[in-house]
Amino acid sequence: MSTVDTTTSPSGPSRSNLGARTGIATVCLSGTLEDKLAAAAAAGFDGVEIFENDLIASPWPPRQVRQRCTDLGLSVDLYQPFREFDAVSPDVFTANLRRAEHKFDVMEQLGSDTLLVCSSVSQDAAHDDDLIAEQLHTLACRAAERGIRIAYEALAWGRHVNTYDHSWEIVRRADHPALGLCLDSFHVLSRASDPAGIGDIPGDKLFFLQLADAPRLDMDVLQWSRHHRLFPGQGAFDLSAFVGRAFAAGYTGPLSLEVFNDVFRQSDPGRAAVDAMRSLLFLQEQVEVGHPAVPQDRARVTELPPAPDLTGHAFTELAVDDASGKQVANALAGLGFTHTGQHRSKPVQLWQQGSARVLLNTTEPSASNESGAAVSALAVDSADPTRSARRAEALLAPVLPRTRGADEASLAAVAAPDGTSVFFCRTDDDAGWPADFLSTGRSPEAGVGLTRTDHVALTQPFDHFDEATLFYRSVLGLHPENPTEFAAPFGLVRSRAVTDPAREVRIALSVALLRRGEEWAPGVSAPQHIAFATDDIIAGARAMRARGAPLLEISGNYYDDLDARLTLDPELLAAMRECSVLYDHDEHGEFLHCYTEVLGSRIFFEVVQRIGGYTGYGTTNAPVRMAAHRRLRVARSTGAPLNER
Amino acid sequence: MSTVDTTTSPSGPSRSNLGARTGIATVCLSGTLEDKLAAAAAAGFDGVEIFENDLIASPWPPRQVRQRCTDLGLSVDLYQPFREFDAVSPDVFTANLRRAEHKFDVMEQLGSDTLLVCSSVSQDAAHDDDLIAEQLHTLACRAAERGIRIAYEALAWGRHVNTYDHSWEIVRRADHPALGLCLDSFHVLSRASDPAGIGDIPGDKLFFLQLADAPRLDMDVLQWSRHHRLFPGQGAFDLSAFVGRAFAAGYTGPLSLEVFNDVFRQSDPGRAAVDAMRSLLFLQEQVEVGHPAVPQDRARVTELPPAPDLTGHAFTELAVDDASGKQVANALAGLGFTHTGQHRSKPVQLWQQGSARVLLNTTEPSASNESGAAVSALAVDSADPTRSARRAEALLAPVLPRTRGADEASLAAVAAPDGTSVFFCRTDDDAGWPADFLSTGRSPEAGVGLTRTDHVALTQPFDHFDEATLFYRSVLGLHPENPTEFAAPFGLVRSRAVTDPAREVRIALSVALLRRGEEWAPGVSAPQHIAFATDDIIAGARAMRARGAPLLEISGNYYDDLDARLTLDPELLAAMRECSVLYDHDEHGEFLHCYTEVLGSRIFFEVVQRIGGYTGYGTTNAPVRMAAHRRLRVARSTGAPLNER
Repeated sequence: MSTVDTTTSPSGPSRSNLGARTGIATVCLSGTLEDKLAAAAAAGFDGVEIFENDLIASPWPPRQVRQRCTDLGLSVDLYQPFREFDAVSPDVFTANLRRAEHKFDVMEQLGSDTLLVCSSVSQDAAHDDDLIAEQLHTLACRAAERGIRIAYEALAWGRHVNTYDHSWEIVRRADHPALGLCLDSFHVLSRASDPAGIGDIPGDKLFFLQLADAPRLDMDVLQWSRHHRLFPGQGAFDLSAFVGRAFAAGYTGPLSLEVFNDVFRQSDPGRAAVDAMRSLLFLQEQVEVGHPAVPQDRARVTELPPAPDLTGHAFTELAVDDASGKQVANALAGLGFTHTGQHRSKPVQLWQQGSARVLLNTTEPSASNESGAAVSALAVDSADPTRSARRAEALLAPVLPRTRGADEASLAAVAAPDGTSVFFCRTDDDAGWPADFLSTGRSPEAGVGLTRTDHVALTQPFDHFDEATLFYRSVLGLHPENPTEFAAPFGLVRSRAVTDPAREVRIALSVALLRRGEEWAPGVSAPQHIAFATDDIIAGARAMRARGAPLLEISGNYYDDLDARLTLDPELLAAMRECSVLYDHDEHGEFLHCYTEVLGSRIFFEVVQRIGGYTGYGTTNAPVRMAAHRRLRVARSTGAPLNER
Repeated sequence: MSTVDTTTSPSGPSRSNLGARTGIATVCLSGTLEDKLAAAAAAGFDGVEIFENDLIASPWPPRQVRQRCTDLGLSVDLYQPFREFDAVSPDVFTANLRRAEHKFDVMEQLGSDTLLVCSSVSQDAAHDDDLIAEQLHTLACRAAERGIRIAYEALAWGRHVNTYDHSWEIVRRADHPALGLCLDSFHVLSRASDPAGIGDIPGDKLFFLQLADAPRLDMDVLQWSRHHRLFPGQGAFDLSAFVGRAFAAGYTGPLSLEVFNDVFRQSDPGRAAVDAMRSLLFLQEQVEVGHPAVPQDRARVTELPPAPDLTGHAFTELAVDDASGKQVANALAGLGFTHTGQHRSKPVQLWQQGSARVLLNTTEPSASNESGAAVSALAVDSADPTRSARRAEALLAPVLPRTRGADEASLAAVAAPDGTSVFFCRTDDDAGWPADFLSTGRSPEAGVGLTRTDHVALTQPFDHFDEATLFYRSVLGLHPENPTEFAAPFGLVRSRAVTDPAREVRIALSVALLRRGEEWAPGVSAPQHIAFATDDIIAGARAMRARGAPLLEISGNYYDDLDARLTLDPELLAAMRECSVLYDHDEHGEFLHCYTEVLGSRIFFEVVQRIGGYTGYGTTNAPVRMAAHRRLRVARSTGAPLNER
């Protein structure tokens, strides 16, 4: 998808550079137990939590699972869950002890020494701390005889015990060396419990830490937990504070992920496991940076170079074929860009206006880019491209090998989750990438006043939206904004931007809330676009129109509604209507923007003017744009005339 | 997909046979406004509610939308929504009146005389009934001057006004003839409000009825409303009581659907609109049957023949190619079936055991059935096949034309939402379908004791799960059971069965909770199977194994877990383990079942023994079965040896 060869060279993850052991619950991943273990090992995890249902469905007896884990270099750190053990009547308790003994047999064969016991959710659970403590004490005695430990966990929806401090109170009363706590970040942070109290728990009573992030949602906590957990760094929870507290208290066990997520449950487990491991690498960096009091050997991630500052979009590369290439070149000319350079050795054109730069890379039509034109690479200017690349590699980004001519600049690049190449550049370096382009003799004119690339917007593959957020956050050091959701003509769309603190680099990610089936409106689901900034969009739009830019016409109804809702300057409103410029505002400022038609089947351009401190992307207008694009597509595919406005 | 020609003949829906006018909000459907209007008209709706955002994004000015609706035979019954009008300060009120006048202009051009005004959800909304009534009175005065009516609706999450009785109190105080109520069934029933109070509202104050069903969910009501509404008959609400109350109170407006649903928002609007219209036809029948006090002209659905009793599965037809046909035939022989008949004119075999019957229809490999073997038809025995077919047609089921020989039985058939043909038969009729088969000379032996078809299980296309429930419920008169959800190895699965009251016909529908991408585990997502009943599964399984049936081996871990959890008769447990028979129980009884391997790429068989009044389908064991099927697939595709158990 890029000027470079995209064969990825998966860097074998090393385990030695981590302060804490890493683990993942098999329930995080899709597939059979066999699939999951292979994926966890390939991503470099030290251990796994075996989710009971995965074992039950596996053809491998526990001893064989143990052998397979040993072969893969994985320890079995936890067997889970054991439900509805305590707060029961004596006869049920007897049956539960029998059940536990059976599970101890399984654990012995598995080579796992810790059993997760969840607090009861039964309607019948006795509200009796002493009874619960006594029953857990008995269980711990039985477990100890088998060399097994019991990690007791308060579920956030537990009937009687549902906070970590209550579970600690139970464990304290039960007072048995084989009984300790499992703290799950979701159960603690979903209830907005203060993790400070973790510091009061003796470290040797913290048997296990399960980590999950999540978006803030106002819904039943059980459903929230079962469907919407995320890997650390993808959601809204402060995992680094949580882990920092546990480390400070003396926790010495693994950092283990337990993430129930509808999308991950059906995604390629190999990909998901790498995403998961990346989340732990990044989390440990955050713990190290944010919690210097934590003992050095617990959080040290020695080989993760800090993210260098980014100073802007160096260029965006489009892969085009002959037909779409001409269409895109014409559109760029209409937008005031000049074809200033030609690559020394490749069929790549450089188009420029101000500091906005677009590369057109003509590829064979039969290449991976079927749609005629697509974003193949994002290039960001980094204060230290080499360090950016080292960091990306340390964070398991697939490194892209580069083929280059003898005199050409070496650009380090990795593949983003959607396959886009990400280049780390220094445009101001004399030996940098611009030197690879021979001048066409045309210098960039003033154009229509576009100054720079404002953002690049990429529809993500359905399975990889949250992965992409974490990728850009961890690898590039960008900050994720709050996700938004809107109703587009063809279904709900989730959107989330990542930016650097100075907002020099902005990447807007989006994804359909449900994977689109493409059954009745094919091709509408994965648009990509590049937005360029201007200081005067009205003048710019008039100039672009005069140059024949294929600007997208916006419905008059849109302006009637603006007029009804807002009291805009009538002259501005008239000009916006004339120029098909759309409007948005937030508490910081205003946003005016216009679009081109779709070029090829998925690419278009946007021109934006930010007034004041507006931080958004005009997402509220996206449905209007989508409907207008759809209208053109239908009209052109059916040959029907466009209706008059 | 069947022995009959499957070219559908869409029956042109007639509008004359309905007691009440029918409507649909454009927000129910996917696409642009242009797409939505075409779909609503094609499905036979009388009118539409125009959702404002759809109009804003449309290139058509309101007058052109009106003309298009006129051309399509649609009235514009409502313009909606107008938000945050009332409970505001005087200056905001002035701006809101200006906004309303702009919208009145739009409505005049649209030819719509009713505006939906929602109760305020703003944090700043005044908790002052008199102020709200006064402001709505002013709005109604302005509206009346334009010949427009205001329909005020209490949103379930309204800040101050959030129940229908409160909205009625406001309207009563405001006391203006151009001000009335819009009652939305979701807002009323989601809050478990008693709809009995609707009877106390004068009929002429009921300006508009919006209908939506929904599953019972324990979540934020706003999110529930925005994502999970369903068409009537697909969820858990008693819409017929709601509508019956409104009719009894004297409501004379349309029955109009307003359904926000994540799946419908991205599905083919033509299909969704037919589903929607079917829901209203069925609802009116329920109102008629359940509320005889309702004036006859309001609820009469004169052309909907009652659903005849069903007495069982007549046969299930599999489309096979040469290779999969042999595989399936061998499996049926292993299961104790006999090839008893051969179709007079088609390459169709009849296999029988007890009253379980399977047809194998050999089709060209290049036919629609790519997967080698698939369920092409379900046939049910009906007390009156002709009436069943007439009902299906009246409920907009696509009628399948039949090609038959001169002496062959005429079987009425329609297409189910997943494309399966549904035949209405009388197996005991001398001139019925069995007469089309020439005897092979082999009479069915005792076989292995399979007595009948217990159920047919069909994975539904992602977009059509709820449509399928309503199809079987309305067309066949089956009762939907509560949906269940389970974690399968490749993602979450939702499952819902439909049965007749005597449980002679059982169809188990399932769907992935997220559309599967098929990216890493292709082909695992759409299995289908036929389950046969027996009174002694252990003896049956032993006999099947002796005959070489390809029974699916179940993991020993499964039995170890059964042993830990339950105190089963050790002899039974040992026999189950030996025979790979799985176990489930509910409050009514027990369930023992076993499976075959997958034949072709998606078909398999199940044998079940129901003990006592067990009503389920062993769904809890589905993940174990799926993992076992996956294991075989991987082993066979890689040529790797199966691991020993």
